[in-house]
Amino acid sequence: MMPLPDRWLSSFLVRADGQLTLFDCGEGTRIAWREVRWSFRRLGAICISHTHADHIAGLPGLLHAIANAGRIEPLDIFGPVGTAYVVNGLRTIAPVLPFAVRVTELRGGEQFALPGELSGNCVAGKHALPVLAYRVERSRQPAFLAERARELTIPVHLWSTLQSGECVTWEDGSAMPAQVLGEPRQGLAVAYVTDTRPLAQIVAFVAGVDLLVCEGTYGNDEDEAKALRNSHMTFREAARLARDARVGRLWITHFSPALEAPAQFAESARAVFAETTIGLDGLTDRLTFSAE
Amino acid sequence: MMPLPDRWLSSFLVRADGQLTLFDCGEGTRIAWREVRWSFRRLGAICISHTHADHIAGLPGLLHAIANAGRIEPLDIFGPVGTAYVVNGLRTIAPVLPFAVRVTELRGGEQFALPGELSGNCVAGKHALPVLAYRVERSRQPAFLAERARELTIPVHLWSTLQSGECVTWEDGSAMPAQVLGEPRQGLAVAYVTDTRPLAQIVAFVAGVDLLVCEGTYGNDEDEAKALRNSHMTFREAARLARDARVGRLWITHFSPALEAPAQFAESARAVFAETTIGLDGLTDRLTFSAE
Repeated sequence: MMPLPDRWLSSFLVRADGQLTLFDCGEGTRIAWREVRWSFRRLGAICISHTHADHIAGLPGLLHAIANAGRIEPLDIFGPVGTAYVVNGLRTIAPVLPFAVRVTELRGGEQFALPGELSGNCVAGKHALPVLAYRVERSRQPAFLAERARELTIPVHLWSTLQSGECVTWEDGSAMPAQVLGEPRQGLAVAYVTDTRPLAQIVAFVAGVDLLVCEGTYGNDEDEAKALRNSHMTFREAARLARDARVGRLWITHFSPALEAPAQFAESARAVFAETTIGLDGLTDRLTFSAE
Repeated sequence: MMPLPDRWLSSFLVRADGQLTLFDCGEGTRIAWREVRWSFRRLGAICISHTHADHIAGLPGLLHAIANAGRIEPLDIFGPVGTAYVVNGLRTIAPVLPFAVRVTELRGGEQFALPGELSGNCVAGKHALPVLAYRVERSRQPAFLAERARELTIPVHLWSTLQSGECVTWEDGSAMPAQVLGEPRQGLAVAYVTDTRPLAQIVAFVAGVDLLVCEGTYGNDEDEAKALRNSHMTFREAARLARDARVGRLWITHFSPALEAPAQFAESARAVFAETTIGLDGLTDRLTFSAE
């Protein structure tokens, strides 16, 4: 929550099919990003949790970086009410860009498309000004039952059409996808939650995600009153959220500047939710569909 | 001119009597600043060369840092025409501060007061949009001629009043400062010049400064045509400016991102002006009045 020489501000970058979505963009995000070596040009959307400076001040610099990288395709910015006003203000120093910037203000409950065939959802949190938590999903097609397709004597060159959900006809017959597709399969989901209390609606909203990136402004349990007062969370509260929502894994981020060694408090989170990682700079992982 | 993981954007911090003036404030300046350990609270003025993002995008974050440090005294921002518009835009994410922010737009030629008894001057440069070069001076009082004061039987407790430039009277007589002060003495001067060509008026403007902080976007002499086209300078052009203006020392800064190892081209500057230093992150020096 404060940029330090050895710790960047929190942000979260999601890549799917080579396309990127960024969550939050505080001062220095474009600098930290360079360590990852993913092209700025591939950034198709930015989801802003709220318009406090530590979550958006890096926007104009990032817009210039994207322009320098050669992007000409539109860029979507999603955020709570008030985002357009702030983006317009910050664009006084990025007025001319080779790509369109489209701002969509959300109130929570909307569903919207994100780059790389991802689906975005949001819910309102509780903070000093409007804040959104985000959930991103990648759906998975049902398995294609090749044996059934052979029984039905469907020509092989039509299988991919069926798999993509369309009906087919051929000389000797016709078939519908439902005849050759298996049960629905679980996709992948991640969530990004910061600068809010762990409200009941947020527990429900992030239920079952594979990865929850969640703020933990305070490490020490004794700061729970402060977390309540400032609409933040302690590590233990973030872990309770992860446990109650039955998520796969938890990454804790967004540390108070007073929290010099976050790892020191990892155990208070792991006591509640074992699969907790302290989200230090550059933490990266790859999520893949299960083998089934 | 581009923030990199191992190289911050150019800015220049001047301290006098514990009071601070900052020149330019690109993205990350508040982070780099922390390495210096001078209090944000002491920042009384920011001089912006021009409103390109790499020279001002860090302003909102810095304003928050100053507020967190407890400043309540006003902060002055000086810059070329257009600065107020940009400051207003950037302040959409720093709308409420415990101190007043006063913006003064300059066209070149004005003189203005800076913190720590410094005097500021500016001159217009040449770039894609209005740009100012700055010169800062600290004047020096003439020596106090104690022997003359004794001859004139001036009571010792009145000496400091005379030294500060006021007349004094006592039982047996009166005296004027001119009677006990020596010749005018040279003060100290520094200049900050970036994002402009080395125009004749800039040579005149920075003449004789003790320290010239000047841009050198390109190290290689072969990039002189590019420097001309983009209104920047090569190292050698910056050195010529330093030589022609007979400055004390030159610090070169504001490197192109393509210039990965600026020190590699230091010799092309030193061949023209020996007292050249490549201005890497954190370069610091102390200027003091001469012994006379």
